[in-house]
Amino acid sequence: MPLPSSESEERELTPPRELAQITALIQPQLVAVEESILQQVQAFDPAVQGYVAYACGSSGKRLRPALALLAAGATGGIDARHVSLATIIELIHLATLIHDDIMDGADTRRGQPTANARWGNSITVLLGDSLFAHALDLSTRFEETDISRAIARAAREVCTGELLQTQRRFDLQLSQAEYFRIIEMKTAALFGVAAELGARLNGASDAAVRALRDYGLKLGTAYQIYDDCLDLAGDEAHAGKTLGTDLQKGKLTLPMLFLLQTASENGARERINQALLNGDAASLLTLRQAARKAGALAAAATAGRTLIEEACLPLNTLGMTRYRRALKEIGVRLGAMVGQFA
Amino acid sequence: MPLPSSESEERELTPPRELAQITALIQPQLVAVEESILQQVQAFDPAVQGYVAYACGSSGKRLRPALALLAAGATGGIDARHVSLATIIELIHLATLIHDDIMDGADTRRGQPTANARWGNSITVLLGDSLFAHALDLSTRFEETDISRAIARAAREVCTGELLQTQRRFDLQLSQAEYFRIIEMKTAALFGVAAELGARLNGASDAAVRALRDYGLKLGTAYQIYDDCLDLAGDEAHAGKTLGTDLQKGKLTLPMLFLLQTASENGARERINQALLNGDAASLLTLRQAARKAGALAAAATAGRTLIEEACLPLNTLGMTRYRRALKEIGVRLGAMVGQFA
Repeated sequence: MPLPSSESEERELTPPRELAQITALIQPQLVAVEESILQQVQAFDPAVQGYVAYACGSSGKRLRPALALLAAGATGGIDARHVSLATIIELIHLATLIHDDIMDGADTRRGQPTANARWGNSITVLLGDSLFAHALDLSTRFEETDISRAIARAAREVCTGELLQTQRRFDLQLSQAEYFRIIEMKTAALFGVAAELGARLNGASDAAVRALRDYGLKLGTAYQIYDDCLDLAGDEAHAGKTLGTDLQKGKLTLPMLFLLQTASENGARERINQALLNGDAASLLTLRQAARKAGALAAAATAGRTLIEEACLPLNTLGMTRYRRALKEIGVRLGAMVGQFA
Repeated sequence: MPLPSSESEERELTPPRELAQITALIQPQLVAVEESILQQVQAFDPAVQGYVAYACGSSGKRLRPALALLAAGATGGIDARHVSLATIIELIHLATLIHDDIMDGADTRRGQPTANARWGNSITVLLGDSLFAHALDLSTRFEETDISRAIARAAREVCTGELLQTQRRFDLQLSQAEYFRIIEMKTAALFGVAAELGARLNGASDAAVRALRDYGLKLGTAYQIYDDCLDLAGDEAHAGKTLGTDLQKGKLTLPMLFLLQTASENGARERINQALLNGDAASLLTLRQAARKAGALAAAATAGRTLIEEACLPLNTLGMTRYRRALKEIGVRLGAMVGQFA
């Protein structure tokens, strides 16, 4: 009698439930992406496959792959090249998460110990590097060099955005414009390139490519704002990751920038600054309550929702398809997620 | 009156003296590579250019660029594409050095504070990532995707080799075969791809491409053995970097593997194992003396010299040019460097 497949294997091959309804129409291709991600493990030296499998197997939301596939569907159809594209972009995302967790000193992600918690920082730096290099190797298999170039550039944007963010930690002078520039680089760039290249691989019109790129960039920006709100005011057990790390690490997120803006009175501003610089559990609670009370959390959530509306508008220039509707529904769903903080 | 250029600027634009005689015939192109490396700084966000300039400006030996250029010269000529190739490969090398220094906790490299000593590990992880992504972005500008693919694969080899090495730290069971496999990945892969692609960009024959690839791989392996000997028995002030870190970090290098092999008597082996596991200054001195006395350092140096001879043999299949002679002379020079430990 053959052994049943293990529970973890089954879970890994199932697209996450959160998006399951919206992305039902790309279910076979999302499964193909999941399989393709797991297949990449085989490309590595046997001695390091265990690390790579762990990094790839922590089934995330696969939002970026979904965007690439839906953008492809909305501009002519989905083929094997889009599955490759989705795989590459998710691998780059996974590589950046691995390095993020080192810098944040995070112990858990998606309910599992992080790579750095399991194997220490040295192995984890190199694991991220290896995944990153492998993703860029895969990207050179497209016939068009402009596809691999766009992927490498988006990867560079992500790294530079993270670098800028790290540089500006505990910098109470950070402006909203600077904040938006940083999150557009560190988060939105990969959403943007996923949607853009999904269309470009189909030879879509410049207008369609631009519409999808703009959609990806704005959706990605809103997604980061949602993540910021979650880190400040979310529930750790439900989120499946360590929360409150932004404040501990001195990352000034949008709710905090709104809070600082509302605190015009000197004493209030001084108290917020002090709590931001402290970054301990008591300060986190103080800031969470202050952000709620001052409407700063709600203002950030509203900014996120406005961005989502703007993201979906250019989609009207695309032909009316189930895929276009699904892209809009992702916006609706993300709008509801960020809306819980409004 | 115009200000004189600063000393550091002058130094950065001058190819290192160590190779100056051998590489005199590619002097203009090496200067072009140096300028090209410094120009890359402009491609980054203004706020991070300072970090990138620091990482790129610590003028190293530029051995890999020299190999790419000489391989090009030996197979038809050197043009702008080879300068790009040399730049890309050196940027990948610099990115890996930056991440190495984090893992080694090294304070100085080439006589200057390391990036991690200046800005901490978080910035430095991201600085390495950004340089790496930029190098792979540059590589997609070649018309032939197989060039960027070979570069991405070599980069992946380097990362995987480093990962394997880190995984096997303090592992007294490491075999010589495993050691050679690791250093071929972490060091030789980039030497090999530099020489190989220098020729491939010229449309050289398969035989010439293979000869140069083999030369690069074996020279790179020998270079790592030299570096291993230097770390164990070199002079810190002269080397311009922190030495003795291999033993402290549990890296079993070739002299140590020879030492373990010669220590057949149980008590002697046990004492070596203990010193390796201790890794303190006294143990380092003990191991250094033991490696000299047992002829283990000399055996490693001899292995390095043999590899260099093997590296130079296939060059005879190339046409007789000044470039071929220079490639052989690099072998002679490296042979003398590693020979000081014999």
